[in-house]
Amino acid sequence: MSFTFDIHATAGAARAGVFSTPHGPVGTPAFMPVGTLATVKALDPEDLVRMGASMILSNAYHLHLRPGDDVVREMGGLHRFMQWNGPILTDSGGFQVFSLERLRTIDEQGVEFQSHIDGSRRFFTPEIVMQIERNLGADVIMQFDHVIPGQSDEATARDASERSIRWLARCLAEVQRLESTQLLEDPPRGEFTGDNSQNQQALFPIVQGGIHARLRREAAESIRSMHDWAGFGVGGLSVGEEKDAMYEMIEVVDDALPKTHPRYLMGVGFPEDLIEAIRRGVDLFDCVAPTRMGRNGAVFTRDGRLNIKRAEFRTDPKPLDPDCDCAACTRFSRAYIRHLFVSDEILGLRLLSLHNVHFLLSLARAARQSIQHGDLEQWSRDWLARYRTTSPLAV
Amino acid sequence: MSFTFDIHATAGAARAGVFSTPHGPVGTPAFMPVGTLATVKALDPEDLVRMGASMILSNAYHLHLRPGDDVVREMGGLHRFMQWNGPILTDSGGFQVFSLERLRTIDEQGVEFQSHIDGSRRFFTPEIVMQIERNLGADVIMQFDHVIPGQSDEATARDASERSIRWLARCLAEVQRLESTQLLEDPPRGEFTGDNSQNQQALFPIVQGGIHARLRREAAESIRSMHDWAGFGVGGLSVGEEKDAMYEMIEVVDDALPKTHPRYLMGVGFPEDLIEAIRRGVDLFDCVAPTRMGRNGAVFTRDGRLNIKRAEFRTDPKPLDPDCDCAACTRFSRAYIRHLFVSDEILGLRLLSLHNVHFLLSLARAARQSIQHGDLEQWSRDWLARYRTTSPLAV
Repeated sequence: MSFTFDIHATAGAARAGVFSTPHGPVGTPAFMPVGTLATVKALDPEDLVRMGASMILSNAYHLHLRPGDDVVREMGGLHRFMQWNGPILTDSGGFQVFSLERLRTIDEQGVEFQSHIDGSRRFFTPEIVMQIERNLGADVIMQFDHVIPGQSDEATARDASERSIRWLARCLAEVQRLESTQLLEDPPRGEFTGDNSQNQQALFPIVQGGIHARLRREAAESIRSMHDWAGFGVGGLSVGEEKDAMYEMIEVVDDALPKTHPRYLMGVGFPEDLIEAIRRGVDLFDCVAPTRMGRNGAVFTRDGRLNIKRAEFRTDPKPLDPDCDCAACTRFSRAYIRHLFVSDEILGLRLLSLHNVHFLLSLARAARQSIQHGDLEQWSRDWLARYRTTSPLAV
Repeated sequence: MSFTFDIHATAGAARAGVFSTPHGPVGTPAFMPVGTLATVKALDPEDLVRMGASMILSNAYHLHLRPGDDVVREMGGLHRFMQWNGPILTDSGGFQVFSLERLRTIDEQGVEFQSHIDGSRRFFTPEIVMQIERNLGADVIMQFDHVIPGQSDEATARDASERSIRWLARCLAEVQRLESTQLLEDPPRGEFTGDNSQNQQALFPIVQGGIHARLRREAAESIRSMHDWAGFGVGGLSVGEEKDAMYEMIEVVDDALPKTHPRYLMGVGFPEDLIEAIRRGVDLFDCVAPTRMGRNGAVFTRDGRLNIKRAEFRTDPKPLDPDCDCAACTRFSRAYIRHLFVSDEILGLRLLSLHNVHFLLSLARAARQSIQHGDLEQWSRDWLARYRTTSPLAV
């Protein structure tokens, strides 16, 4: 098996483990930086290595449109194209396609939509999306699913969840067909020898069901019975629902999924959510927030968020976060980074993105360590109390 | 003396030397990357170290307006503010102020102008500009001069050149006053002990005179007789005049300035100009072209320029320049960098800026080596022939 998950320690529902992939191990809980278009925005892959990122994310919808998954395949697959030799997970693009409110029509076969770039008509089916993800060649590929707004009623959520499960069966069949016929264009896995372990991608199903506990349980049950999956995605959360509803759904899913496999909570990555979800058994996270917020001047610190553009920081000699050891905080003052931002200098975007991504990577590592040390409850209580109560300007 | 210049080898008018500054030596000929606003656009100071940049440039006019030279001084001076521990040269802002065509009035005292950022009224005199450059704390500071358009007639050029020389005397007096009264806020030079060598900035005069040989000679003569300068700037070239006129002026100035001191040709930095000027005795260069062009997708290669946005590069697996060993060329394909550009990804700006700056740094180093090896003429002929005749798309 190319994909295994070993749990080294637990603390309540939380687990510290290692998820093994063809491109190396991922210590969990882990935060995966998002490289939508085959680049984690404003960062160099070298930065990610130095920050200790283990697995990163990319996106099938976006890469299909630009530069084209055929181009990525021709260039040797995503790992080689973007020069990231660690594990990669690609999202299927379900979320993106279903966000194109007025630009798509759905039926059982798939979704017809218009490219957000050039308006061209495109058709995604579970089979086509698996072909795209095969061309990209990531280690973990997400199923194509029917994504609905966070506040959808139970009937809408059931319809989408059940369609997603039917589509999952089609994804699985297509992945198995591709595995036996098409070599992954990824040289580190070597020549195609017929040995499937050299040619495997792990298809992750996605548990949907909105904020309806019954639907979540039923989805998890159907999915479990279909196949021996390498891991599970949990989708449709952190999309506008109440925090309590999100936490409840995570608990429901934790209960319904096998404890032995990694669970990936899609699109979740604010510090407080990361901690709350880790406590409820989640292993993998991703979120565009650290780089997107960074590009807007927002900074995570141990004492809460601050915005670097504020006049208070004009001559502030302190680092962004005095407790941080990232390549921005160990070198530059708030005053300098504020100057870069106010002057629209690219280095400002780089330094804040670097800091914010490092912050979440470190947070997941600290949680992992506290699980191993058996003090997750105390650690997370302390961490959240400080994060929520300190005024960043007072630091 | 904090500032010395040792010539190790010559080849005709060309020289290979070492210019010593309080922040370290500069092997010449050298290209100085431009960090107008205390950052070389799209690059990290760490990148510059790795590329072997020795001295960089910044700008008094721009830093006076944003973040304010008082802020830079309060933050420990420019070296500490931007975390660049090598030599820095600041341009005075003469070029910028005199570019504000409709926003300034000139008299013998100085120039009144409006900030290009907020329209506020400002007044620059030679004394004020020296105070700004003192606050910034660069190793080399350029005089405040009266800059005129490249095609100006002799009367206009004479008026501006003679005013620049009168202003130079005022700059010198003010620098000497500041040296004896105001500590450089630059910690690597230590506490103020009254020892001037710990507290010196090298004021470089600027030889003006447009494209009029007689004026250039007279200016060089007047400036030489005024003081024992550590080096000389040559200004008002590469501003729209014919190439031949520029090369002629460099020859005139080479002849009129002492061979024993470094000469800095301001604002010049295209590869062909660098080589032609090195052959005519120039030691130091700066130019925004490598980063500005990089941000537009233009790439220097040994075989001429190319634009990475062209469709030809969509699946081109070659590096930007197959003969380059920069951090972009040793890792990424043209196809990937083109994708980044087409997708407006910040990493694309970084990689092209990195490559173009590295290209000019390497070019100056190669010229230096060929002077030392005694084959400058052959080397430059070969280099220029290949650069001018090869089609980059054919590489």
